[in-house]
Amino acid sequence: MSLFLSVVPVHEAIATVQRLAVQVPQETVPLAEACGRVLAADVHSDVNIPGFTRSVMDGYAVKAADTTGSGDATPAMLTLRGRIRMGQGADQPVHRGECIYIPTGGILPEGTDAVVMAENTEPLGDDILVKKPVAHHENVIRYNEDFKKGGVVLSRGRRLSAQDMGVLAAAGCAEVPVTRRPKIGILSTGNELVPVTEIPQIGQVRDVNSYMIAAFARDHGCIPVTYGIIRDERPAFEAALARAVRECDAVLISGGSSKDDRDMAAAVIARQGEVLIHGIAIAPGKPTIIGRCGTVPVLGLPGHPAATFVVLVVIARHLLNGMIGTTDGGLVTVPAKLSTNVPSTKGREDYIRVVLRDGIAVPLFGKSGLLNTLAESNGLLRVPAESEGLETGQTVEIILL
Amino acid sequence: MSLFLSVVPVHEAIATVQRLAVQVPQETVPLAEACGRVLAADVHSDVNIPGFTRSVMDGYAVKAADTTGSGDATPAMLTLRGRIRMGQGADQPVHRGECIYIPTGGILPEGTDAVVMAENTEPLGDDILVKKPVAHHENVIRYNEDFKKGGVVLSRGRRLSAQDMGVLAAAGCAEVPVTRRPKIGILSTGNELVPVTEIPQIGQVRDVNSYMIAAFARDHGCIPVTYGIIRDERPAFEAALARAVRECDAVLISGGSSKDDRDMAAAVIARQGEVLIHGIAIAPGKPTIIGRCGTVPVLGLPGHPAATFVVLVVIARHLLNGMIGTTDGGLVTVPAKLSTNVPSTKGREDYIRVVLRDGIAVPLFGKSGLLNTLAESNGLLRVPAESEGLETGQTVEIILL
Repeated sequence: MSLFLSVVPVHEAIATVQRLAVQVPQETVPLAEACGRVLAADVHSDVNIPGFTRSVMDGYAVKAADTTGSGDATPAMLTLRGRIRMGQGADQPVHRGECIYIPTGGILPEGTDAVVMAENTEPLGDDILVKKPVAHHENVIRYNEDFKKGGVVLSRGRRLSAQDMGVLAAAGCAEVPVTRRPKIGILSTGNELVPVTEIPQIGQVRDVNSYMIAAFARDHGCIPVTYGIIRDERPAFEAALARAVRECDAVLISGGSSKDDRDMAAAVIARQGEVLIHGIAIAPGKPTIIGRCGTVPVLGLPGHPAATFVVLVVIARHLLNGMIGTTDGGLVTVPAKLSTNVPSTKGREDYIRVVLRDGIAVPLFGKSGLLNTLAESNGLLRVPAESEGLETGQTVEIILL
Repeated sequence: MSLFLSVVPVHEAIATVQRLAVQVPQETVPLAEACGRVLAADVHSDVNIPGFTRSVMDGYAVKAADTTGSGDATPAMLTLRGRIRMGQGADQPVHRGECIYIPTGGILPEGTDAVVMAENTEPLGDDILVKKPVAHHENVIRYNEDFKKGGVVLSRGRRLSAQDMGVLAAAGCAEVPVTRRPKIGILSTGNELVPVTEIPQIGQVRDVNSYMIAAFARDHGCIPVTYGIIRDERPAFEAALARAVRECDAVLISGGSSKDDRDMAAAVIARQGEVLIHGIAIAPGKPTIIGRCGTVPVLGLPGHPAATFVVLVVIARHLLNGMIGTTDGGLVTVPAKLSTNVPSTKGREDYIRVVLRDGIAVPLFGKSGLLNTLAESNGLLRVPAESEGLETGQTVEIILL
């Protein structure tokens, strides 16, 4: 192996993980557990919504034409014909010159086509004075105006939000077809690693990445499966990878991906499968590996936590989304002004942590091994590969973390 | 009771729910389960991080001064003194004019203060040619540069992200002090409501809101407890509210909050506690109730799903965040240009659903009862109370959903 990585552009790395991503099969979950999951099929409404023309106000159902020209000084006087009760129709049609009290959600009676808000009326004996005209269909939702029976309410690939729960409930989707949560195997490698519960001695560091990768995977709708700390010994590493590949839908390896000869991730992946990419034109995160063992995608992430995080956000995210069958959940960016010059090397996409406050992005030029920039920053500045740097005061897009 | 609501401004409603929010007690969870939870106490590092000065590159540990003035044509020649192994110190100090191979994460040996990247060197027999100077402390992380032992790594009130998992792991925080997940009781009221599994008849609608509210509560770190559909009968409603107040930390009632005389939420809350606000200057969502039963906050939300959602986002969110002890997780807004004029009534805060695409916000002027605007929109436009409307082409801030 050469001492130097042969790097590929970020877009090529993303395309490669998207190609490797095999969508997981679907399963059905109760509606109450579907939020955050990804739809595996289009959902159709089993009814017309609404199933009847209904009022969206408390007020009086009228024929809109009867209110034309009405005002405070010139109210329209309509005869009150009782009241609609929730869930019940009117006893008889309402005629021209008449009105009937209707609560929000009430069934609009035959002969009426709009609702006057209670606030715009005044009772006068058995009559109602209407002081503001309403238009045809004002303050009502018409029969099947919202969704038609059989129509698609939400489409395959959608990551379901709290609002979507309401839409699915209305459509009668009590059992929701979603993609299964992919299992993501997580291996941390390195003789220097000790568990969180141990006090690291000189030369040792705690296993930080497996917690971060597991939480990232869970945040992205996956089930993390951690395989603990793997020593830099080939048989142990090979056995752990083989087991993870057997048990999981994808494997993320932390550490062991740089070109130092002790690093064996690429060799172990190649032995059990294929290394497609070793090295991405990204900083931090250059020594990333993309490979596969059979149909199971395997990523080798750099050991530095901040670099690991950038590769998770920029590259691995696309793998997880692809497996789970969605393109939703893209990065959210907001514009900001740079507080200082940012130098950059052409030919490499740089991701620099920033503190974003009041529209100003302050870059934290921390070394990629530092954790405090993980704690302090709330955004990432992407410097495109073709840029040689950005200037103070320039407007840039910041990826929100 | 008067026919009209006496409305309060949105900021007063928010201040009221924040005052009502009693922070829940803390509990301890394993680190692997802490992501998304809110820290109940500051977390201190139990060690210096790192515990030793370490390399962040694969390369050669050197005395930086030995590389001054070096370049491609004028390399510095340093005698190679073997290699550092991971987790182990050097056998002996490195002297001026010497260097030693060091892997990423290796312990910087005595006598050196920087690391030259392998890429900027070339071997020549037993010597290493350095072709680029390094500065004092370049490519190393110094002893406790990241966090000092006993220092605060993350503060109370922080909503923990995937990145934070890494920081907590490094600090030795295997058991994380977090606020308990508040239990949010959810009551859906209305004679017109039927469960999702039933086909609604004329006059009926499915119970949409309890699913939406439950998912919203869970998204905000709470445990939803649903009490099913409550009929508009005072004894049933009173019993359900009493039970929810006994069992939960807060109660959200859907429906029954408008001023129609059949709507009894305010009366039932007043009977068991106190109604503080009935009516907010917000559209949709005007007939919202804010009250309490003992120390348990009780909100009455409008029955229209789209209105319910706006009140959840604008008002209830502050209640849940207050209970859980955080101010994190504010709304994310991005600037956009309006595609059309937006009329508005002065004195009322309007929230209009928009489709945001390529920096253009297209308002969906759907009636607040429509579900399809919930499915189609991806943002909310806030029109401030003092505005009489917004104009085509104007730059506005869109709340991302």
